[in-house]
Amino acid sequence: MNRKFIGVDIGGTTIKIGIFTNDGELIDKWEIATDKSDSGSRIPADIWQSIEHKITEHMITLSTIGGIGVGAPGFIDAKTGKILIGVNIGWRDFELGNVLHELSGLPVYVDNDANIAAIGENWKGSGDLVEDLIVVTLGTGVGAGIVANGHIISGTNGMAGEIGHITVEKDGGVPCNCGRSGCLETVTSATGIARQATEAVKAGEDTTLMERYQMNKKLTAKDVFDSANEGDIVSQAIINHVTDVLGYTLANVATVINPSKIIIGGGVSKAGEHLLGPLRTAFKKYALPRINEGCEFEIAALGNDAGIYGGAYLVKQTIG
Amino acid sequence: MNRKFIGVDIGGTTIKIGIFTNDGELIDKWEIATDKSDSGSRIPADIWQSIEHKITEHMITLSTIGGIGVGAPGFIDAKTGKILIGVNIGWRDFELGNVLHELSGLPVYVDNDANIAAIGENWKGSGDLVEDLIVVTLGTGVGAGIVANGHIISGTNGMAGEIGHITVEKDGGVPCNCGRSGCLETVTSATGIARQATEAVKAGEDTTLMERYQMNKKLTAKDVFDSANEGDIVSQAIINHVTDVLGYTLANVATVINPSKIIIGGGVSKAGEHLLGPLRTAFKKYALPRINEGCEFEIAALGNDAGIYGGAYLVKQTIG
Repeated sequence: MNRKFIGVDIGGTTIKIGIFTNDGELIDKWEIATDKSDSGSRIPADIWQSIEHKITEHMITLSTIGGIGVGAPGFIDAKTGKILIGVNIGWRDFELGNVLHELSGLPVYVDNDANIAAIGENWKGSGDLVEDLIVVTLGTGVGAGIVANGHIISGTNGMAGEIGHITVEKDGGVPCNCGRSGCLETVTSATGIARQATEAVKAGEDTTLMERYQMNKKLTAKDVFDSANEGDIVSQAIINHVTDVLGYTLANVATVINPSKIIIGGGVSKAGEHLLGPLRTAFKKYALPRINEGCEFEIAALGNDAGIYGGAYLVKQTIG
Repeated sequence: MNRKFIGVDIGGTTIKIGIFTNDGELIDKWEIATDKSDSGSRIPADIWQSIEHKITEHMITLSTIGGIGVGAPGFIDAKTGKILIGVNIGWRDFELGNVLHELSGLPVYVDNDANIAAIGENWKGSGDLVEDLIVVTLGTGVGAGIVANGHIISGTNGMAGEIGHITVEKDGGVPCNCGRSGCLETVTSATGIARQATEAVKAGEDTTLMERYQMNKKLTAKDVFDSANEGDIVSQAIINHVTDVLGYTLANVATVINPSKIIIGGGVSKAGEHLLGPLRTAFKKYALPRINEGCEFEIAALGNDAGIYGGAYLVKQTIG
């Protein structure tokens, strides 16, 4: 089949775009800058202009394109393609889907970027198109895209899968960007891991993190994993705490969803088995045996391309 | 439309059966005893014999029956209608769906009883056919049926929605029937509430529960709600703890599912607003504001009939 799909991943700085064959082969991918001026109103035209240019270059006939699938940050009404609140961009009740459809004449489907990345991983990354899947992103924050019965779950107002804001410390806990305290992302995001490392250094604990801190004036999640691998006890304790809290929370989320796979992506996932090993142990400790037996852990495979793959797959899945 | 559906709810003691019109009007309902002899192998024949008798009595033509929907306790492969492990009945890899289909010649659909009860409530109880729903049963244990994108989620091996086994106390906690400790149902089931009341009495706390205990030699969840309504401080503290833990856990589950409704059923739900009032307060405390705003709480409306309604609706939803 000659059909093509276009995937678009809108971020606060750049917009990634890819053209895919019907089987998910990448024909071309590129980036454009995100123009946030005028509350982001020029973005749809920028996207379509850029796509038109590329399909001309590749001599692709418009009628062979099945549609455009878009991942965007924020609260989205996936049924109408409307961005209720576009985080980092300034959109409010912005008719992204309709505007892009009017420009292109193509079917346009829009969903939350974390959800789109999840179905991208499921299509061509570590997922194998499983029916029940959790894809967790451990980056600056903690996000997730969840697939149940083979479809993204968005929830009643686009908040499904916001597991970074599951409360892991009922009383106290570190303040979170959401205005509450004790959320998962305060502990297990790259930012949260770096914070715990900095606190250990400032408390004068006996750790090789001190040298890294003095050299770079700051600490990262990578510093903690590197120090732990070199035998630093304090770093190992931080990783044990992080994976215990993450394994505990994912076991509870898995008690709701019962996934066959949990995929971990984002910057922190670069630690690979140093993360997955203790995470599996913690998950097993807190999950019902049957849920643990049914669930595999993997590291995400597509990196920053998950969003464009997912956008393309959203079109493929929707138009059938 | 003249079409009928049959709903069957298999329990450890009785099997409830109902015949419904296409619009969900109950034509007749009745019960038969659950024959657990020979590992429950006679159950399908018992069910079909009883249905045949009733449809003859009501002069219903077999060809007008759209199918039979069955809720059963245990781990179920909903795709094949096979009971992997039938709790309380003795089934193991039992082809309930196929056997009942061969006896009746009708399409047969099978799912977990908690899931079936959830879609029954959604069809004709407190649900209004919402797309994203959590139905929690607070009885001897704590179970849930979850609907996302309008469909039951069962998970990869039938364990989705087993929220009674979400860990609420990471360290310590009361031993649970599942073999672990600190599960939600150890605190918020009828059994868990009664246990906390008995412990308070045995610890010599100053509470009117003492008189109830001396009179009946035991305490129930109802005793705790009744004493609390009469001003007993100890009972009020137990209810505050139970609703705090339940509201906390449901806020975390809602962060995964983002439901528009949470329906509470089971024996404990008879407390009505005395339960829902503090539960809403706790939920609001732990949930992201947008998730709280999108979610209503209600008490289940169908009681023990939810399962037969849900069985009938499963057929209606599946055959369209």
